[in-house]
Amino acid sequence: MQLHQMPSSGNCYKCVLVLAQLGIAYTSRDLDIRDGSTRTPEFLALNANGRVPLLITDDGVALAESNAIIHYLAEGSALLPTARLAHAQVLQWMFFEQYSHEPYIATNRFYRVLAPDPSQHVERMAENAPRGRAALAVMEAHLAQRDFFVGDYSIADVALFAYTHVAEEGGYDLAPYAAVRAWIERVRSTPGFVPMPSS
Amino acid sequence: MQLHQMPSSGNCYKCVLVLAQLGIAYTSRDLDIRDGSTRTPEFLALNANGRVPLLITDDGVALAESNAIIHYLAEGSALLPTARLAHAQVLQWMFFEQYSHEPYIATNRFYRVLAPDPSQHVERMAENAPRGRAALAVMEAHLAQRDFFVGDYSIADVALFAYTHVAEEGGYDLAPYAAVRAWIERVRSTPGFVPMPSS
Repeated sequence: MQLHQMPSSGNCYKCVLVLAQLGIAYTSRDLDIRDGSTRTPEFLALNANGRVPLLITDDGVALAESNAIIHYLAEGSALLPTARLAHAQVLQWMFFEQYSHEPYIATNRFYRVLAPDPSQHVERMAENAPRGRAALAVMEAHLAQRDFFVGDYSIADVALFAYTHVAEEGGYDLAPYAAVRAWIERVRSTPGFVPMPSS
Repeated sequence: MQLHQMPSSGNCYKCVLVLAQLGIAYTSRDLDIRDGSTRTPEFLALNANGRVPLLITDDGVALAESNAIIHYLAEGSALLPTARLAHAQVLQWMFFEQYSHEPYIATNRFYRVLAPDPSQHVERMAENAPRGRAALAVMEAHLAQRDFFVGDYSIADVALFAYTHVAEEGGYDLAPYAAVRAWIERVRSTPGFVPMPSS
């Protein structure tokens, strides 16, 4: 398999972590979304939506969307429960991540750490901040009673770990979220864990 | 099963459509997100994220996130392929819908048709518009060569149909998207189709 990715992207790191933990061999093609590499005709022919990560499967099919990629990788493994309700609950948290978490937590990290001129995004960052804290509060309430999001460690945890563990780079203080911080350490202790490259 | 929902919401309609097409009996509890009904202590105890749709399963479990709900409902039916790659491709389009489509197409419809004062949202609507058109262009390119998003009609089509077929209520002109318009008619012709209540 081949993973088209930007190593400092949490969405890409989800794939790297699952590939590592499942021991799947792959090659990596590194791109930088800031220099137009994902908007070239060649790349758009692979993913018309112009985004990484993008996985090229062993059959040569291009699969987009980080959470769809890790679902594909994890199917049949212990990282994805097969029971109907648990499977749907894993997806519930993955859709929560993409709709209620990533647009506020990942985006503010991008503005602060990766964007050329953070000062252009001050107003949007301020608007995002309470929504990001709301997402962290939802996670905190859920994790106060559980070790992982759905049963054992799964791709729901991978999806939420990717940007939560670097939320402070986006200006979010994790101090008030004790259960989230304890869960971050539990994820770091899972077999085969690999850290995200520093941005 | 019981569906907590707001009938004019496309995310809720996804569930209503799948329940109808699969012939699943359920009761509906209608809420209005504009009057605080999804922010009461009683509702937040069911879904800490304070959103509809919310499905209460026959086992009494509360399941959130429209696309997770329709995945739960469709598992084992013809609406969800079981092959590993096709399953992941269905999810790819469902994550595309929640990340690259709904925040621009559904949100502009909400501002124009459902919000108390559309004039407060003029700037954000203008900012959203090119992103919504980009999502429609991605759909158009894909559908130019296919009848449905992944193989036969699936929950990927349901997820994208919900807000695309009312995109004009959000100010999007569908005239340039001939393949999208033909696909909308194909979805309307699927067995057991029920229309969305008018808002």
